[in-house]
Amino acid sequence: MAFIGAGLAIIGAAIGAGYGNSKVVAQALESMARQPEMSGQLRSTMILGVAFIEAVPILGIVIALLMIL
Amino acid sequence: MAFIGAGLAIIGAAIGAGYGNSKVVAQALESMARQPEMSGQLRSTMILGVAFIEAVPILGIVIALLMIL
Amino acid sequence: MAFIGAGLAIIGAAIGAGYGNSKVVAQALESMARQPEMSGQLRSTMILGVAFIEAVPILGIVIALLMIL
Amino acid sequence: MAFIGAGLAIIGAAIGAGYGNSKVVAQALESMARQPEMSGQLRSTMILGVAFIEAVPILGIVIALLMIL
Amino acid sequence: MAFIGAGLAIIGAAIGAGYGNSKVVAQALESMARQPEMSGQLRSTMILGVAFIEAVPILGIVIALLMIL
Amino acid sequence: MAFIGAGLAIIGAAIGAGYGNSKVVAQALESMARQPEMSGQLRSTMILGVAFIEAVPILGIVIALLMIL
Amino acid sequence: MAFIGAGLAIIGAAIGAGYGNSKVVAQALESMARQPEMSGQLRSTMILGVAFIEAVPILGIVIALLMIL
Amino acid sequence: MAFIGAGLAIIGAAIGAGYGNSKVVAQALESMARQPEMSGQLRSTMILGVAFIEAVPILGIVIALLMIL
Amino acid sequence: MAFIGAGLAIIGAAIGAGYGNSKVVAQALESMARQPEMSGQLRSTMILGVAFIEAVPILGIVIALLMIL
Amino acid sequence: MAFIGAGLAIIGAAIGAGYGNSKVVAQALESMARQPEMSGQLRSTMILGVAFIEAVPILGIVIALLMIL
Amino acid sequence: MAFIGAGLAIIGAAIGAGYGNSKVVAQALESMARQPEMSGQLRSTMILGVAFIEAVPILGIVIALLMIL
Amino acid sequence: MAFIGAGLAIIGAAIGAGYGNSKVVAQALESMARQPEMSGQLRSTMILGVAFIEAVPILGIVIALLMIL
Amino acid sequence: MAFIGAGLAIIGAAIGAGYGNSKVVAQALESMARQPEMSGQLRSTMILGVAFIEAVPILGIVIALLMIL
Amino acid sequence: MAFIGAGLAIIGAAIGAGYGNSKVVAQALESMARQPEMSGQLRSTMILGVAFIEAVPILGIVIALLMIL
Repeated sequence: MAFIGAGLAIIGAAIGAGYGNSKVVAQALESMARQPEMSGQLRSTMILGVAFIEAVPILGIVIALLMIL
Repeated sequence: MAFIGAGLAIIGAAIGAGYGNSKVVAQALESMARQPEMSGQLRSTMILGVAFIEAVPILGIVIALLMIL
Repeated sequence: MAFIGAGLAIIGAAIGAGYGNSKVVAQALESMARQPEMSGQLRSTMILGVAFIEAVPILGIVIALLMIL
Repeated sequence: MAFIGAGLAIIGAAIGAGYGNSKVVAQALESMARQPEMSGQLRSTMILGVAFIEAVPILGIVIALLMIL
Repeated sequence: MAFIGAGLAIIGAAIGAGYGNSKVVAQALESMARQPEMSGQLRSTMILGVAFIEAVPILGIVIALLMIL
Repeated sequence: MAFIGAGLAIIGAAIGAGYGNSKVVAQALESMARQPEMSGQLRSTMILGVAFIEAVPILGIVIALLMIL
Repeated sequence: MAFIGAGLAIIGAAIGAGYGNSKVVAQALESMARQPEMSGQLRSTMILGVAFIEAVPILGIVIALLMIL
Repeated sequence: MAFIGAGLAIIGAAIGAGYGNSKVVAQALESMARQPEMSGQLRSTMILGVAFIEAVPILGIVIALLMIL
Repeated sequence: MAFIGAGLAIIGAAIGAGYGNSKVVAQALESMARQPEMSGQLRSTMILGVAFIEAVPILGIVIALLMIL
Repeated sequence: MAFIGAGLAIIGAAIGAGYGNSKVVAQALESMARQPEMSGQLRSTMILGVAFIEAVPILGIVIALLMIL
Repeated sequence: MAFIGAGLAIIGAAIGAGYGNSKVVAQALESMARQPEMSGQLRSTMILGVAFIEAVPILGIVIALLMIL
Repeated sequence: MAFIGAGLAIIGAAIGAGYGNSKVVAQALESMARQPEMSGQLRSTMILGVAFIEAVPILGIVIALLMIL
Repeated sequence: MAFIGAGLAIIGAAIGAGYGNSKVVAQALESMARQPEMSGQLRSTMILGVAFIEAVPILGIVIALLMIL
Repeated sequence: MAFIGAGLAIIGAAIGAGYGNSKVVAQALESMARQPEMSGQLRSTMILGVAFIEAVPILGIVIALLMIL
């Protein structure tokens, strides 16, 4: 059962992180191409947002590791 | 059973946080590129919104940890 | 069984809160960038809406805690 | 079985409330930014709509509490 | 079994009511912002529609209560 | 088994009624805001359509009641 | 088993009727607001279409009644 | 088992008929409002299309009746 | 088992035929309203397409009949 | 088991054929209405495409027949 | 089990081929109507693409035949 | 079990290849119709992309063959 | 069980690779048709992106092979 | 059970990586074609984003390998 649970956890973590990060990074790329003079500020905001989004999936990966060990 | 439950909880938490945060951050990036003079206020509102959104998934992660320990 | 039920409850609570809050906050950011002079009123309405939306997921998290304790 | 049922009930209640309230509040924010002079009337109609929408999920939460107690 | 059935019933009732009411209220808000002079008539039609939509979910909630009692 | 069947029936009835009625009422509100001079005829057609749509879910609710009694 | 079958049948009947009728009625309302001078012909065509759409769900409701009696 | 099979058959028949007919009738209503002088020809083509679409669900309903009798 | 199989077959046949035919007929209606002088050719092409689409579902219905007899 | 397998095969064949053919035929109808002088060439290409699309579902129907005989 | 596996394989093959081929053929029809002087080149590219797309489903059909024989 | 696994593998391979190839080929057809003078370069890039996309499904088909032999 | 697991892995790998690669290649084709003078740089970026995307599915295919051998 | 868990993990990892990376790379290609003079900065931001996105799926692949060994 622990393996199934870990598998489910990885599904959630990978899809959540993939969806969330890609949306933020893609929007940052689009905005940088439209407003090149703001690229520094946009990039710092993007990394701030990515950090918020990565937090929960990384915790999920750690819990999945705790499950199978 | 506890492992499956924890896996389900992580799916919900990671996807909810990934979807919600990415939408807010992407909208903030778009608005900052359109209205650069409001970037301070937009960023503070963004962090306020991210805090509201992160609250429930973080609680879910804590409950998942309580389950498998 | 209690663990599965709690996992399902967290899925609902996290996704509901993540979807609902992000929609409101993103709309508030967009409206603030379009109408900067109304940002105070929009932010207060946003927090009012977030409070309504958070109410049910927080209750769900509490019920999930009651289940596994 | 009661726990699974309560979990299902919370999924429905949280997602229904999150989807419904966020749509109404987001629309109210957008309309307030477009018609600032009507913001009082829009806000009262918004709260009226939120009350209608919250009614069924709150009843569902109460039933879920009755199930696990 | 009764608990699962009640949980399913609450899912349907809450999502149906949340989706239906939010669509009607959001449309009413949008139309009121576009045609302020018709706001009285729109609001009365909105409440009429909400009453039609709430009827079936409220019956479903009552049936769910009959199941678990 | 009867309870599961009734729960499924309520899901169908509530979602069908919520989706169908909300679409008709929202369209009626939009059309009334665009053509105020036709609001009487639109409202009568709306109530005619709601009656057609409510017929099947109400029958489903009655069958669900027959199942659990 | 008969109850589950009836529940499934009601899901199909209610959602099919709700989706189909609402689409036709909403389109009729929109067309009537755009072409008020054709409202009689549009309404008669709408009722003709609703009759075609209602036929199958009503038969399904009858079969669901035959199952549980 | 026969009841489940009949329930599945009714789901398919009702949703297929509801989706298909409503699309055709809604398109016919829209085209009639745009080209009133062709309403006769459009209505006859609409009924021809509805007949083609109804054929398979009616057969499915008949088979569902054969199953439960 | 034969009943479940027949039910699944009818789901596929009815939804496939309903989706496919309605798309073709709706497109034919729209094209006839836009190009009235080509309505004969469009109608013959429409019936040709409907014949291709109906072929597989009708075979599926026949196989479903073979299963339950 | 053979019946379930055949039912699944018919679902795939009917939906695949219905979706694929309808898309090609609808596009052909739209293009013919826009470019009447190319209707011959478009119709021959359409039939070529339909033949490619029908090939796999017809094979699937044959395999379903082999299963239940 | 072999029959279920073959049924699943046919679902995948038929839907994959139906979706893929129809998209390519529909795009080819649209492009031919827009650029009639390139119809030869477009048709040859279309058949090349259809051949790539058909390859995997045909192999899947062959494997399904190997399973049930 | 091997048959179910092979069936699942063929579903993934056929749908993945069908979706991926059709998107690339349709885009290539559209771009060729818009930029006829680049058709050679677009076609070579298209075949390069198709080769990348086909690689994984073909490996999946081979693994499915290894499973059932 | 190993076969089911391998089948699931191939579903994920094939669909992930098919979706991801096709999106990148289609976008590259569209951009090359719009900006022919940048086709070299776009193609190299495209291949870089395809390499990132292929990495995970190829690892998944290798793990699926390890499972069934 | 370990194999199923690994299969689920690969589904999540491959789809998450495929979706996320393709969105970022496609957006980068589009922005490079629109703003050729910023292609260096866009490419570096793209690779930064791809690195964030790949992190979680690669960890998931490693956990899947730990499961089956």
